[in-house]
Amino acid sequence: MPAVRRNELKEKIHEIIFEADTPAGKAFDVVLLILIVASVLVVTLESVRGLQSHYNNFFYALEWFFTIIFTIEYILRLYCVYRPAKYATSFFGVIDLLAILPTYISLIIYGTQYLLVIRALRLLRVFRIFKLGHFLSEGEVIIRALKASRAKITVFLTFILLLIIIIGSIMYLVEGGQNEGFSSIPRSIYWTVVTLTTVGYGDITPVTELGQFLSAFIMILGYAILAVPTGIVSAEMVSDMRKNTLTNQACRYCGKEGHETDAVFCKYCGERLNESLS
Amino acid sequence: MPAVRRNELKEKIHEIIFEADTPAGKAFDVVLLILIVASVLVVTLESVRGLQSHYNNFFYALEWFFTIIFTIEYILRLYCVYRPAKYATSFFGVIDLLAILPTYISLIIYGTQYLLVIRALRLLRVFRIFKLGHFLSEGEVIIRALKASRAKITVFLTFILLLIIIIGSIMYLVEGGQNEGFSSIPRSIYWTVVTLTTVGYGDITPVTELGQFLSAFIMILGYAILAVPTGIVSAEMVSDMRKNTLTNQACRYCGKEGHETDAVFCKYCGERLNESLS
Amino acid sequence: MPAVRRNELKEKIHEIIFEADTPAGKAFDVVLLILIVASVLVVTLESVRGLQSHYNNFFYALEWFFTIIFTIEYILRLYCVYRPAKYATSFFGVIDLLAILPTYISLIIYGTQYLLVIRALRLLRVFRIFKLGHFLSEGEVIIRALKASRAKITVFLTFILLLIIIIGSIMYLVEGGQNEGFSSIPRSIYWTVVTLTTVGYGDITPVTELGQFLSAFIMILGYAILAVPTGIVSAEMVSDMRKNTLTNQACRYCGKEGHETDAVFCKYCGERLNESLS
Amino acid sequence: MPAVRRNELKEKIHEIIFEADTPAGKAFDVVLLILIVASVLVVTLESVRGLQSHYNNFFYALEWFFTIIFTIEYILRLYCVYRPAKYATSFFGVIDLLAILPTYISLIIYGTQYLLVIRALRLLRVFRIFKLGHFLSEGEVIIRALKASRAKITVFLTFILLLIIIIGSIMYLVEGGQNEGFSSIPRSIYWTVVTLTTVGYGDITPVTELGQFLSAFIMILGYAILAVPTGIVSAEMVSDMRKNTLTNQACRYCGKEGHETDAVFCKYCGERLNESLS
Repeated sequence: MPAVRRNELKEKIHEIIFEADTPAGKAFDVVLLILIVASVLVVTLESVRGLQSHYNNFFYALEWFFTIIFTIEYILRLYCVYRPAKYATSFFGVIDLLAILPTYISLIIYGTQYLLVIRALRLLRVFRIFKLGHFLSEGEVIIRALKASRAKITVFLTFILLLIIIIGSIMYLVEGGQNEGFSSIPRSIYWTVVTLTTVGYGDITPVTELGQFLSAFIMILGYAILAVPTGIVSAEMVSDMRKNTLTNQACRYCGKEGHETDAVFCKYCGERLNESLS
Repeated sequence: MPAVRRNELKEKIHEIIFEADTPAGKAFDVVLLILIVASVLVVTLESVRGLQSHYNNFFYALEWFFTIIFTIEYILRLYCVYRPAKYATSFFGVIDLLAILPTYISLIIYGTQYLLVIRALRLLRVFRIFKLGHFLSEGEVIIRALKASRAKITVFLTFILLLIIIIGSIMYLVEGGQNEGFSSIPRSIYWTVVTLTTVGYGDITPVTELGQFLSAFIMILGYAILAVPTGIVSAEMVSDMRKNTLTNQACRYCGKEGHETDAVFCKYCGERLNESLS
Repeated sequence: MPAVRRNELKEKIHEIIFEADTPAGKAFDVVLLILIVASVLVVTLESVRGLQSHYNNFFYALEWFFTIIFTIEYILRLYCVYRPAKYATSFFGVIDLLAILPTYISLIIYGTQYLLVIRALRLLRVFRIFKLGHFLSEGEVIIRALKASRAKITVFLTFILLLIIIIGSIMYLVEGGQNEGFSSIPRSIYWTVVTLTTVGYGDITPVTELGQFLSAFIMILGYAILAVPTGIVSAEMVSDMRKNTLTNQACRYCGKEGHETDAVFCKYCGERLNESLS
Repeated sequence: MPAVRRNELKEKIHEIIFEADTPAGKAFDVVLLILIVASVLVVTLESVRGLQSHYNNFFYALEWFFTIIFTIEYILRLYCVYRPAKYATSFFGVIDLLAILPTYISLIIYGTQYLLVIRALRLLRVFRIFKLGHFLSEGEVIIRALKASRAKITVFLTFILLLIIIIGSIMYLVEGGQNEGFSSIPRSIYWTVVTLTTVGYGDITPVTELGQFLSAFIMILGYAILAVPTGIVSAEMVSDMRKNTLTNQACRYCGKEGHETDAVFCKYCGERLNESLS
C-alpha cells in the first residue's frame, strides 16, 4: 500500500527533523545548527567592503546554497508535520519562513539579503536540541518577572517619554541658537535620550554655561531614574523566588501555612502534612 | 425655565468632556488625544530648519488652530465644572492652561511657542480614558517606594553633590593648566557629573597622566556609588511588596489591620482572629 | 567675679554657636550657611577666566573676608567648647580647620586657594541645624549596608583591579601598534576602566577589527559585572530593612519569635508580650 | 641519614613557602608580594615609550631578575610540596607557571613579555597570607549567587546576542549608505554593543534621522535590559542571605538541618526540635 509507505516516509522525516532523540535526528540538528551559524557569518562578512569586492560571486553562490537548503527543509517540515497550518503560524514556523524570504525578495529589491541575519533566531532551537529545556524554564522566570512588572514599567516608560520630550524642548530653547547639535527639537530629544540613558556618545554636547548646568541636573536625574526599573525587576524576582520556596498548603491540624516545598511534617505542630498523598 | 435648560446643557457638556463612559464622551476623548499628539508633533517639526522654511505659514496656522481649539475646550471645562476654582488649581487644570498660554505669549516674546510641548503632559489623561486606572495605581507603588526612600535619597544626593564639588576642584588643580577642557571649576564640575553618572560624553577628557589616574579612581567610585540608589529603591520595593502579603483581615475586636498570614491572634489586642474559620 | 562672668560669656557663645534651639543660635547658623555657600561660590567663580580678569581684586578681598570670619568662628568654637582638644580632632573640627588653612597657605604656594571648596563639607551641618537628624540616621542605614557588604565589595574590587590590569595589557598587545591611543599599558588600563565602568569617553577607541571584537566582549562583561555590586548593596538593604521591622523578643508563653515592633500581643498564642514593660 | 636530612630541608622549605604562621614564612610571603607588585609595575612602565627609550637595558635586566627569582621559587615549590603533580595543576600552580613563561618565550617571539602582567593574579595569595580567609568566603557568596543564576544569565546572554546581531544588521541597512561608521555589519554590531551596554564611545554615531530615531529606541531598550541581570543577581543574593537566617540546628532524630528559626517540630520527620530548651 503506497499510502502507508508514504505515511511511513512522513513518520521517518518527522522523526529526523523534529526530534533529537535518535542518532539521525541528532545528526540532522547538529548539521542544521552549523549551517545556520555559517549562513549568518556569510551574510555578516558579505557586508565588509574589502571582502565583498574579492569574493562577490562566492558569497552570492553561498547565499543561494543556504537559502535553497533551508527552503527544502521548510517544505519538508510543512510536509511531514501533522498540522501544517499550526506549524506555519508557530513562532519557529514564522522564523523559518522569514529566514528564506529575503534572498528571494533580493532578486527584486536590492539590499534585503542583509535581513537574512534573522536566521540567527533559528539558533534558539539549540536549547531544545541539547536538552537545555530547564534553561528555557529559567528564561520563563525572567519573562514572568517582566510580565508581572509590565504595568509598572508601562507607567514608568510613559513618564520617561513625556520627560524626554519636555527636556528636549527646553534644551532646544537653551542651546538651539549657539549650538549646531541642538538645531531642532527632534535632535534635542535624541540628545536627551543619549544623556538620560547614560550612553553619552558626545556627538552632541551642550556648549553654553546654562546648557551644561542643566545637563548636569538631567544626568543626576537620569542616575536616580535608572534605579527605578532595576528596583521593579529586582523586587519582582525576589518575590517570584520566595513564592517558589513556599507552598500554599495549610496544616490539617493547626491550620498554619508557610511550609517549604520539601517539608513533610508541619513545623508548628508536628503533624504529618499532605496525608492524602502518603 | 431657561435656567434649568442651561443647567441641562452644563450637565451635557460635563458628561462629554469629563466622563468617558458615554459614546459621546469617549469620542471626545479620543479626538482630544489625537489633537494633542498632532499638536506636539507640529511644535516638534516646526523646529526643524528644512521644514520650517518651506511650511512656515502652514505650521503657524496649525499652531493657532490647535491653540484656539484647546482654549475653547479650557473655557468649556471651566464653565461646566461644578467648582471651577478647584479645577483651575488641580494638576490637570494647570497643565491645560499652560498648554495654551505659550502661543499667546509668543505674540510678545519670540520662541516661547516651543514651550507648547508641555501639551504632552495632557496625554497623561490616556490612563483615565482607557480605564487604565490600575496602571496608575502601579505608578503609585513606584511613587510610594520613592517617597519612602526620600530621606535616604536626600542624604545620598547631598553627599554626592559635595563629592562632585570637591572632585571637580581637585581635577581643576590637576588638569587646569594643560587642558582647555578643565579651564574653570564649573567646567570641571560639569566633567565630574558627566563622569560619575557614567554618561561620558568625551567632550572634556583628562590628558595628563595624573589626571587619567585620578579619573580611573573616580569612575570606579562612581561605579560603586551607582549601586546605592538602586539598592535603596530595590529594598523599598521588596518591602512594599512584602507588605502586600499581609492579610487585609481586620481584628473583630480592635479593628486593626496588617496581620500576617500566619497570625492566629491579633497582635494589637490579643483576641483570636478568624473565629468563624476555627 | 570676672571668672564667673567669663564663664557666662562662654556659655552664651556656646549656646549661639553650637546650639540651634534659641533664636540667636538659629540666626547664627543660618548666616553661617549663607556665608559658606557664598564662599564656595566665590572660589568656584574665581576660577572662571573671564570673571577672574575683571573682578580679580574683588574676589581676592572676598576670599580674605570669608577666611577671616571663619577663622574668628573657629577660634570662638575652640574657646567656648568644653573640651577643645576633642572638638579639634572631631570630624567637623578638622573640616573647620581645613576650611581656612588654604587661604593662608596660598600666600606661600599659589593655587591652593581652590582647595577652599572643602568648605562645602561644612554644609553637612545643615542636617543638624534644621533638625533633620532623622535624615542622618537614614544615611546611617546606607553606611551600615555598605559596611556589612565591605568584605564582599573588597573581594569584588580586588578581582576587578586584577581584571583591569590583565585586560589593559592584552588590549595593548592587540591595539598598541596601530593605535596612538593604546600607546602604553597605563593608557590601555585607563581605557579599560573607562570601558568597564560604561563611562565610554571615546578619547581612546579600538580601531583594529580584533580590538573591536575584544572590546565588545569586555563591554558585555562589564555589563554583567555591574550587576554584582548593585546586587550586594540591594541584598544588604533588604536584609537591614527586614531586621528593623521585627523584634528579637520571644513570647514568654509559647516562645515564638518574629513579632513586629508594634505588636502588643503574641500573634501565635494570644498572650501579652513585654509584660515587664506594661 | 642524608635522606632524613633532606626531608627535614624539604619540611623547612615547605613551611617557609607554603605557610604564613611562622616569622620566616610570613617574611617570605611579604617579600614575595612586594616582588610581584614591583614586577607588574616594571612590565607596565616598560610599555611607556618615553621611559622605554631611556631605561631599556634597566627594564630588561629587572625583567630577567624577577623571572629568575620566580623560576627558583616555582622549582622550590615543586620540590618541597608533597604531591607536585597536584600543585602543578592547581589554580595557583598554573598561575605560577604562566607568570614565568612569557619571559622565556619572548626570547623567541617579541612582545610576549607584556603577558607577564598575569603575575598580578599571584596577588590573590594576599587573602591567604593576611588571614583574610573570611573575605574569600564572602567572595564565595558572590560566586554562589552567580552560579545559582547561571542558567538565567545564559538564557539572557543568548537572547542579547541574537538581539545584537539583528539590531546591528538593521542599523547597517539604515545607516550603511550615508555613514562611514556603519560600513559593514560587524562594525554595526560593534556599535550596537557599545550602545546597548550604555558605554557610548561616540566613535560611531548615527547621522540619518531614521538612524537616530531607531538609536533612541535601542538605548531605551538597553536601559530596560540593564535591569534584568541586576535583578537576577540581586534576587539570588537576597535569597542566599535569607537562607543564612535558617538555624544550623540539626534534628535529633533524622539529623536534617535547615530549620527556620520559628520551627518547633522537624519538618522532615515530625519530631520535636530543641527539646532541651522546652
